[in-house]
Amino acid sequence: MTINDWNKVKSYLKEISYLEYTASLLDWDLKVNSPEEGGWKKEEIYSYIKTQAFNKFISDRFGELLEAVDISSLSPIEQKIYKNIKENYKIQKAIPAPLYERLQKTTAKAYPIWVQAKKENNFAIFSPLLEELVTLTKEIASNLNGKDNYESLLNLYEPELSLECIKNISEKIKDFLIPWIEIHKNNFHVKLPEITYPIESQEKFVNQLLEKINFNKKQGRVDVTIHPFTTVVGPKDVRITTKYTENEPLSAIFGVLHEAGHGLFEQNKDAELYWLISGIRYSYGVHEAQSRFWENIIGRSPYFWDYFYPILQDLFPELKSLSLKSFVKIINKIEPSLIRIEADEVTYNLHIILRLEIEEKLINSKLTVKELPEVWNNTIKKYLGVTPKNDSEGVLQDVHWSQGYFGYFPSYMLGNLYGAQILKSLKSDLPDMEQKLSKGIFSEINSWFNEKVYRWGLIETGPQLLKRITGEELNPIYWIEYIKDKFSKILY
Amino acid sequence: MTINDWNKVKSYLKEISYLEYTASLLDWDLKVNSPEEGGWKKEEIYSYIKTQAFNKFISDRFGELLEAVDISSLSPIEQKIYKNIKENYKIQKAIPAPLYERLQKTTAKAYPIWVQAKKENNFAIFSPLLEELVTLTKEIASNLNGKDNYESLLNLYEPELSLECIKNISEKIKDFLIPWIEIHKNNFHVKLPEITYPIESQEKFVNQLLEKINFNKKQGRVDVTIHPFTTVVGPKDVRITTKYTENEPLSAIFGVLHEAGHGLFEQNKDAELYWLISGIRYSYGVHEAQSRFWENIIGRSPYFWDYFYPILQDLFPELKSLSLKSFVKIINKIEPSLIRIEADEVTYNLHIILRLEIEEKLINSKLTVKELPEVWNNTIKKYLGVTPKNDSEGVLQDVHWSQGYFGYFPSYMLGNLYGAQILKSLKSDLPDMEQKLSKGIFSEINSWFNEKVYRWGLIETGPQLLKRITGEELNPIYWIEYIKDKFSKILY
Repeated sequence: MTINDWNKVKSYLKEISYLEYTASLLDWDLKVNSPEEGGWKKEEIYSYIKTQAFNKFISDRFGELLEAVDISSLSPIEQKIYKNIKENYKIQKAIPAPLYERLQKTTAKAYPIWVQAKKENNFAIFSPLLEELVTLTKEIASNLNGKDNYESLLNLYEPELSLECIKNISEKIKDFLIPWIEIHKNNFHVKLPEITYPIESQEKFVNQLLEKINFNKKQGRVDVTIHPFTTVVGPKDVRITTKYTENEPLSAIFGVLHEAGHGLFEQNKDAELYWLISGIRYSYGVHEAQSRFWENIIGRSPYFWDYFYPILQDLFPELKSLSLKSFVKIINKIEPSLIRIEADEVTYNLHIILRLEIEEKLINSKLTVKELPEVWNNTIKKYLGVTPKNDSEGVLQDVHWSQGYFGYFPSYMLGNLYGAQILKSLKSDLPDMEQKLSKGIFSEINSWFNEKVYRWGLIETGPQLLKRITGEELNPIYWIEYIKDKFSKILY
Repeated sequence: MTINDWNKVKSYLKEISYLEYTASLLDWDLKVNSPEEGGWKKEEIYSYIKTQAFNKFISDRFGELLEAVDISSLSPIEQKIYKNIKENYKIQKAIPAPLYERLQKTTAKAYPIWVQAKKENNFAIFSPLLEELVTLTKEIASNLNGKDNYESLLNLYEPELSLECIKNISEKIKDFLIPWIEIHKNNFHVKLPEITYPIESQEKFVNQLLEKINFNKKQGRVDVTIHPFTTVVGPKDVRITTKYTENEPLSAIFGVLHEAGHGLFEQNKDAELYWLISGIRYSYGVHEAQSRFWENIIGRSPYFWDYFYPILQDLFPELKSLSLKSFVKIINKIEPSLIRIEADEVTYNLHIILRLEIEEKLINSKLTVKELPEVWNNTIKKYLGVTPKNDSEGVLQDVHWSQGYFGYFPSYMLGNLYGAQILKSLKSDLPDMEQKLSKGIFSEINSWFNEKVYRWGLIETGPQLLKRITGEELNPIYWIEYIKDKFSKILY
């Protein structure tokens, strides 16, 4: 009975899902609810649960269950899922379990030190741990049997894309961006009124936004954290977070749109994936494409604000003297800066390229941890013309390395590119998309994404998804054209 | 190196603690944070984690680790801990793992049905599951090798106390209470002003209370739920919950004092127990004694309100026309009623005795699930003179059975008795305790409990703890005398 064999795989993955959802809840709780001293040793608990899930996944038993499945007995979708899981098994299995556990334990140790180092602007206390993490990561990468250690790591987050391809893309982006930013960056002479934007009103606006774009609060929550994120703590429980600042409402608005983009993807995946997702290898770039699509392509488009700006003005009457055109300019301001997560839509990719180049050198032993701060500062000066005052604004700014996420950053850039390329198909299927946005009607856009991306997008690689939706390979020209087109309309 | 053998036991228990803290967090989150539909399948996740913890605990491997310890190499406290864990291992090991797993799965199924049954006042939909649970519980009890199935269950929560002893006690309590209540119940003719008590002011008061009695919010939280509870989700993370109602502030105040009593115990246990507690068998009665001590013996004493009543009056100025004496009468009102969790300090024990008698018959096959509602209604009529209008007010009111907790209820009564007996020692060590309460000074009381109860109380059985603190066996006369004395002062 081959169908039973598939059911056995599913039952086994269900138990891994229990652990993974639990780990996500631990992480969410630590960031959202922890009393001042309550987080003590919680990273240890988290890393234990993650390790249990990992060990269960790479077990020989699971390998046997996978082998026993007769693929011809499965439906086409099941076959795709099966192949994805099997490939993922092969990759994860190549990581020696003791190495994985050591990585988990080291990141548990490294995270609080990174927090302290960033707070105290002290790279020296973090660097020994970073060295340990780099060494461990290299060792893991060497087990993955790719032709290049850094490519192997990249492919954990971005299956099927070669390092060469990503480097080619980033060269094209650099060639376009560096001179283009230089020309356009000085054309933004408007700014938001410097008033207090009461957090209560910001929350009101954010909640209206979420309702309109159909983020389902019956199967999700919105909470406040220092570093916004999205997580999935149960099959029907997708949680996003945001932060509010009284002196400007934009970071909360675009932060929420970003996380809601991730959230919509997770909330609208096919129910078949609820208990399989923990075995699936997916493209983080495709996931980031969803968040950056809602944050930037939709959320920073003039059309979107045709509908929402009057609502915002009602909540903050001081905005009534600021025109829609000026507001749209403000939210699209191009301004080279130091901090990635605060970067504008255009300069953002340069922040990623900086990290991509540094990570590649670090993992492929062309750069040491000691040299990092200097190389960071020199490179950001070269690409963006800005210089960090200290390492907290420079090499210490991102959490990723303290968590062992080397090779993750490029997914953010790829997300931008995927989004712009997908936009072309969306517009061709919904020619009146912009008019709909102007009226605050999102249902057709939601349906299009549900069908084309959300439902089964997690089981495809980025290239597969692009090919299916657009018929083409990944091409940065779509993003470049999108930027040129958008800013020609906004600026002039 | 025998010390290493003990360290091995500790490391092993640490992993079980990871799972147990995680399970507690899952449960807390489900009750505090769950979006409307977000709880879907969460019980399954919870029961999986609990089962993992259980299987790990009863494993042969852990048995071997325990056997390897040379007890003579341990300190006296370590020896006590070791003996406790070993005894617990023996008991839990006697429960066949498949039975435990089945119980977990059945309670995961039963809980939502119980919620529905209670809501819809429909015992019929719950009774098949209850029957399943009773059957399973009997099977588990029969594996525990006690001389009586119900005693075996009782001893899971209340080690070392015999059923006979508890039955003797409950007879004495009944003999005292039933006539005593009849005489005194009609002597409460005052009531709270029927006004709105703004929740914000209630919260303010509750927070002052918690600060004063030294509940540590840096290592804990207070949240809102329908059914208040206390849980420990990390070594330094003890969470209590409460509920507020606008039309009266007492349920929040005494609810918080109750849970804070549990919380203080957990927050002040010795740090050595952080990772050992999951292996320790403790007396739920001693735990309940802490909560009921703060709720009733301290919280409902006139002295306590010498200090707090003026603060409460400032928050609710309408209370200024109500005297302290009247207020103390109100919070101590004796009024036979249907719902245990709303019962007053005096009638409460009769609610427990009712459940004790019913549970014993149910487990020892002298009563069927079908007969339950009728027997319930007849007994509560006999003991308290009240009749449920429906099963939601009767046999369906408590969550315990849906969770498989048969034999747990008596711990509540024992908690009352332990508390009153402990009070005698406390008063003899702190003769000016009542004056301190009148001044809102809690530090000496806190210190006394820290030393005598909290620090190591979890590793002792109820009788051991009583013997150590009071030099005596459990004797209900202390509670009876406490009640007589208290009400003679309050009422006349």
